[in-house]
Amino acid sequence: MDIKAVVGRNVRRYREQKSISQEELAFDTDLHRTYVNGIERGVRNPTVLIVGKLAVVLGVEPRKLPELED
Amino acid sequence: MDIKAVVGRNVRRYREQKSISQEELAFDTDLHRTYVNGIERGVRNPTVLIVGKLAVVLGVEPRKLPELED
Repeated sequence: MDIKAVVGRNVRRYREQKSISQEELAFDTDLHRTYVNGIERGVRNPTVLIVGKLAVVLGVEPRKLPELED
Repeated sequence: MDIKAVVGRNVRRYREQKSISQEELAFDTDLHRTYVNGIERGVRNPTVLIVGKLAVVLGVEPRKLPELED
């Protein structure tokens, strides 16, 4: 699977586990909601700094975001 | 530690474990040698697609690159 899709699926999964909306995640990371949506859909190609910001707000280690689930 | 620095240190470590030069890693990933050097020094902010390409050539899973060592 494409690494953008892996990151996107994990962002969505951890966001839903925290029960926050894309709007809230976007606000807390200083990103635009449509950009967060694009990341979750695997169409955006975020930098490692963006991955790091998302991980902080989602409360996971950055390595969890590019990690393939078993 | 800054996530760019973490990624950079891991790229350098796995590259040295494979005994390949920055030039070889750059060639195999279709990146410029100075860009790979900047990634290793933690001054560049690569995208997840670049992280994925580096991981393939280094023979590690992408999640290993943003991973803090113990």
